[in-house]
Amino acid sequence: MNVTELAQRAKNASFRLATLSGSVKNTALQQVASALRAHADEILQANALDLQAAQAALAAGQMKQALYERLKLTPEKLETTVRGMEQLLALPDPVGMVLDETELDEGLILQKISCPIGVLGIIFEARPDVIPQICALAIKSGNAALLKGGKESLHTNSALMETILSALSTVPGYPQGSFALLTSREESAQMLLEDRYIDLIIPRGGNGLLAYVKANTRIPVLGHADGVCHMYISATADVAMACDVAVDAKTQYPAACNALETLLIDDNWPLSKQEKLLHTLIEHGVTLYGDARVGALVPVAGPVEDWHTEYGEKKLSVRFVPNVQAATAHINTYGSHHTDAIISQDEQEVQLFLNTVDSAGVYHNCSTRFADGYRYGFGAEVGISTGKTHARGPVGLTGLTIYKYKLRGNGQKVADYVGPHAKPFTHKKRGGNV
Amino acid sequence: MNVTELAQRAKNASFRLATLSGSVKNTALQQVASALRAHADEILQANALDLQAAQAALAAGQMKQALYERLKLTPEKLETTVRGMEQLLALPDPVGMVLDETELDEGLILQKISCPIGVLGIIFEARPDVIPQICALAIKSGNAALLKGGKESLHTNSALMETILSALSTVPGYPQGSFALLTSREESAQMLLEDRYIDLIIPRGGNGLLAYVKANTRIPVLGHADGVCHMYISATADVAMACDVAVDAKTQYPAACNALETLLIDDNWPLSKQEKLLHTLIEHGVTLYGDARVGALVPVAGPVEDWHTEYGEKKLSVRFVPNVQAATAHINTYGSHHTDAIISQDEQEVQLFLNTVDSAGVYHNCSTRFADGYRYGFGAEVGISTGKTHARGPVGLTGLTIYKYKLRGNGQKVADYVGPHAKPFTHKKRGGNV
Repeated sequence: MNVTELAQRAKNASFRLATLSGSVKNTALQQVASALRAHADEILQANALDLQAAQAALAAGQMKQALYERLKLTPEKLETTVRGMEQLLALPDPVGMVLDETELDEGLILQKISCPIGVLGIIFEARPDVIPQICALAIKSGNAALLKGGKESLHTNSALMETILSALSTVPGYPQGSFALLTSREESAQMLLEDRYIDLIIPRGGNGLLAYVKANTRIPVLGHADGVCHMYISATADVAMACDVAVDAKTQYPAACNALETLLIDDNWPLSKQEKLLHTLIEHGVTLYGDARVGALVPVAGPVEDWHTEYGEKKLSVRFVPNVQAATAHINTYGSHHTDAIISQDEQEVQLFLNTVDSAGVYHNCSTRFADGYRYGFGAEVGISTGKTHARGPVGLTGLTIYKYKLRGNGQKVADYVGPHAKPFTHKKRGGNV
Repeated sequence: MNVTELAQRAKNASFRLATLSGSVKNTALQQVASALRAHADEILQANALDLQAAQAALAAGQMKQALYERLKLTPEKLETTVRGMEQLLALPDPVGMVLDETELDEGLILQKISCPIGVLGIIFEARPDVIPQICALAIKSGNAALLKGGKESLHTNSALMETILSALSTVPGYPQGSFALLTSREESAQMLLEDRYIDLIIPRGGNGLLAYVKANTRIPVLGHADGVCHMYISATADVAMACDVAVDAKTQYPAACNALETLLIDDNWPLSKQEKLLHTLIEHGVTLYGDARVGALVPVAGPVEDWHTEYGEKKLSVRFVPNVQAATAHINTYGSHHTDAIISQDEQEVQLFLNTVDSAGVYHNCSTRFADGYRYGFGAEVGISTGKTHARGPVGLTGLTIYKYKLRGNGQKVADYVGPHAKPFTHKKRGGNV
């Protein structure tokens, strides 16, 4: 089957997925989780084949160590993924929720009801554990999905998908063709053109992937490019807290997209505290970049070349700013709308920061590293969105749903509600359960 | 100022708009409404200039009568628009609502808070009343906007925008540069490229406009192309209700996007009722299209050339289908995901229809013509969306907002929540007020 046929088949399946009960979806999840455990050996053997090729590429300098690590599946990694999948079982069905209910007139009831988006198109780089994660979220939210993985993990991806498809085929009522694996670049390019059948593209990978996807599709795209996260240390900041939280945000896992990249320090924070914070960061192995003023306090590796820089390692841009307004202006100019924090004891300033900074996450007195679907209590995430529509920040099950309006009456026609003798609408809010 | 500068200025304004209180936004709305009333004469004079040019175009056959009608502003039309604007005053501020609240741990509180999207890019054809409507919705929702109108209404658009801008300039705290009018095609094309500053494009016009916009921008697009609405008459349908509702859906305002275009009749509905419904439609001036089977019951103008057809006038495609499954398959294949209705007395069949039909509006026993922001009780709408992400159906104030996550703590760091001695998250739902 070519990509168009796979996409059309997934679309047809999606109409049936939208009608499944929560219990059928949970049965499907459970079957898939059990099958992944039962077939763990085969999956790890397939992974070994990918790793063999990767080792050669590594030795030839054609692959980075980090990519190799992401490619590597272990029994523990697989078990963690399966457990994550099982955690979704306990979450309420995200489909069929009454988000809003209004009586338009007696006997004419409008409900806004959550429903699946339809067909997802996922493009991910060499991280085979994305397949069970995304499939689990898609199953629970009643979506179909085409998944395109990196060629480096082809054997692993195929083994995972085969296991998942065969498990789903045993679930009564679960439509065939809900999921499919794409493997070539050509298929990926073709998927981006299937706007008739695919409703949302989620690229999971670097900056380049997102840009490529956005430039080549008319389908809505959910994702994030950079994670240039900021922390502003107000003149009122507690120094111990600033040290603690900045060190955590920068060093706890520097490669993460929610790690700190730029530190903005208020001019009016006492000099001794400024020095203490910068020294503490250096003691934790952080290399600082900044201008002469920063250099006058602590050793710096050089000036900041580009305030948009996402280091992804223990390096940090430092800048002094005159006030919270300058801090928010800097963040809204150079940031990536991901997660930005203020350390402050002044509530008015905090409010201004939280409302003005145009980011998915705006934090007060805590580390930017909390920006994560699991930490937010979503159970799992498909990724983090820095866009301004549909879903923002860590995207869990809710971000994979949309709504439809159900209007139920007993023969009402619009003609009765217009003109000189128009019946009035009652527009009585009856609330929703969400 | 060129478009890039206008867009950048609007983006900067948007950061301040996001912090405005509901009362400042209502003051702005009120000022604009009063100014439009006070300057009605000038606006109508400007409209007269546009109409003069339009009459020449009409006489030369270069403009359609319908376009001319849409272009024409009357004192009544303007007053209706101003009143619609004033209705927004009473609605709650859509910004700053706590959509969700979770305690992640003691003293670490996550709030999902509604906020404006940022900068809207609106492209509309010759309907000058779009300007006050969109500006009102943008003001209330805290968004900035660039608006590009058709050249046919240039004088009217300029007079409207001048009035609005001058009214806004009197509101203390309201940021300059929140709104701007674009006038040329080149500016419109440039606007679509400003993905750094513009967050959402809303095209209001025909099918061609939406396709053009989608093909030429990386910015998310909200809108609808066709309105091919269906009505399925089940074997259990009440014949009087079917006649009433179908006539309303087709004839009450045939040019509307929520008017009926295709009637699907169940084979098993008694023949006498089939005849009654089709005859009733013909009596109301509807021309029917259908195959020999339809032709055997009533006169038809010919077969249906294309099931995707949106007639926009008193013409209707008719098809017999064996059951509700065939009806939903037809709708999901040929429909436009706008609004589709079932007339039925069988609850099980109704549930299947409402859950399977993949449209923004799925109706039971009422007319498709109810699909409208005003009728839904939204106060106003920016348009109807047939997309599958962000917002669906009539889009009111809520569709012009998104959310951000505010996380407030007292020095929490992620390092304490990972590893062998990890503190557990509490993830206590504290609900939201929405």
